Amino acid sequence: MQRIRFEDGVIYAFRPDLAPVKSVRSGETVEFVCEDACGGQIRSEKDTLASLDFERVNGATGPVAIRGSQPGDALRVQIRDIRVADVGFQSIAPKVGVLGADVDGPATKMIPIRNGMAVFSRSIRLPIHPHVGTIGVAPAEKSWTTFYPGDHGGNLDTKEISRGNAVYLPIFQPGAQLAMGDIHALMADGEVCVTGVEIAGTVRVRLDAVRGAALKRPIVETRDAWIAVASAPTLDEAATIATRDGVELLVRGTGLAWKDAYMLASIACDLRISQDVDPWRTAKLVVPKSLLKRSPIRRARAAREPAKPY
Amino acid sequence: MQRIRFEDGVIYAFRPDLAPVKSVRSGETVEFVCEDACGGQIRSEKDTLASLDFERVNGATGPVAIRGSQPGDALRVQIRDIRVADVGFQSIAPKVGVLGADVDGPATKMIPIRNGMAVFSRSIRLPIHPHVGTIGVAPAEKSWTTFYPGDHGGNLDTKEISRGNAVYLPIFQPGAQLAMGDIHALMADGEVCVTGVEIAGTVRVRLDAVRGAALKRPIVETRDAWIAVASAPTLDEAATIATRDGVELLVRGTGLAWKDAYMLASIACDLRISQDVDPWRTAKLVVPKSLLKRSPIRRARAAREPAKPY
Repeated sequence: MQRIRFEDGVIYAFRPDLAPVKSVRSGETVEFVCEDACGGQIRSEKDTLASLDFERVNGATGPVAIRGSQPGDALRVQIRDIRVADVGFQSIAPKVGVLGADVDGPATKMIPIRNGMAVFSRSIRLPIHPHVGTIGVAPAEKSWTTFYPGDHGGNLDTKEISRGNAVYLPIFQPGAQLAMGDIHALMADGEVCVTGVEIAGTVRVRLDAVRGAALKRPIVETRDAWIAVASAPTLDEAATIATRDGVELLVRGTGLAWKDAYMLASIACDLRISQDVDPWRTAKLVVPKSLLKRSPIRRARAAREPAKPY
Repeated sequence: MQRIRFEDGVIYAFRPDLAPVKSVRSGETVEFVCEDACGGQIRSEKDTLASLDFERVNGATGPVAIRGSQPGDALRVQIRDIRVADVGFQSIAPKVGVLGADVDGPATKMIPIRNGMAVFSRSIRLPIHPHVGTIGVAPAEKSWTTFYPGDHGGNLDTKEISRGNAVYLPIFQPGAQLAMGDIHALMADGEVCVTGVEIAGTVRVRLDAVRGAALKRPIVETRDAWIAVASAPTLDEAATIATRDGVELLVRGTGLAWKDAYMLASIACDLRISQDVDPWRTAKLVVPKSLLKRSPIRRARAAREPAKPY
């Protein structure tokens, strides 16, 4: 198994011309060792978002190239395990987060992890459910700092990117160039205060190139659902794109006519919010697998059969 | 038990000066008999949203006055039962719904209800989960057609307003003036195509005035959660208000300082979408009861103790 440490390679922007620090074959298992989203700068409740060196915030470990993968393929990242450190933190500051206008000054809370529980206070302990906040590939054209979510992935803050689930990312550049970081021990949909339980962690993934799958945007697969994940400048725009993509998943998985799939989505597929705090917002349409006859993700039959972009 | 039929009274706007068709005491159980949201005009797949008389769309049965209730009180509506007809429908049309831009013409699907299942197609049958789409009271100042959701309730399309749960509405006018309709046999968060399974139904509720509870907006109580429900012209604005209200519920129910409650919301309270299709949009913050020490809704101690508006 390959292992990529934060010290081996870290990026602060998903650029089209990313150069890999390591190359692996499709089908390999890789461990990514990730710093917390603030690069280890928050060590006590005296350290706040106001005192950070922002050049060292939201680093993503990588990139890793998947040999032979090409634009038009998809990258399936199966999350096999996420191990987190024994302490994380939350931090708020004026002007950031959903209620940034109401915050009168920065504050940090250190959150120990004990026996699988996040210890928020003496009386409030919550079971952890670790996920990868930032995960992405080299984008098609422009560069995106790791603060942004987008079609290339990035700061998706989607809590379903957790152990046992898979995220499919479009591949825009040869080798894909996967990087990830911004681990959360726990986060609710919305990430309303701008942080989950931010924590260092190690993510073990299996990487597979899916030839010719031709995705436009990230899709998450859980045991029970396919989730179309879309990011845009506003929640309203992100919700529209996620709905359009999710209805397309329904068409592909059921064979229904588009109008029928659109109606079915309205009664069987929840439109939800991943995060409402990053520079762009992320929404998702949750398509239950129980509705589908087949996988909505298609591998091209021939080696380089051109696929209709999804 | 009182029973209000659609023929007894129906409104198409929540106005400040609504006059009741019936008055009940706090603590009474009342049945509201409701037409479907299209007023029974859709009887086959030939009938579409394009052929409707819109003067007869989204009628709400009522209003019912709760005797002695006053502005500053809240109205608790406990949903004891919802019985639905044996056939419902979904309907789509260009320019309405999240993907209205993609719809090339109107279409309707009749959906029979058999043995508790909505029969979408021969192979797709979904368990029904009836809820009340439109429920509201006389607003403070301006009039709102029943198409709109707002602080007075109205077209909230919030699927948790279902059997066993309660919705708390602010009271702005003497007697509250409750009306409801727009029953759905089933709907997913977002209501993306603009309809759930629209259906006629009878809703049995228990009505209680909660003296001095002084709500600003609707709150839904389920077995496991308190849900702050907020509506605004955009999803982005609705999400901000729902988050602000939900954090206030956390403060009231936990005694935590506001900053701590805000951080806790970010890891334990999902920010979700009720509907993304009505003229205003509705978002909700889901606050698990397991976090709280006490109810976040306070009855004033004295008969007319002034309450701080929530």
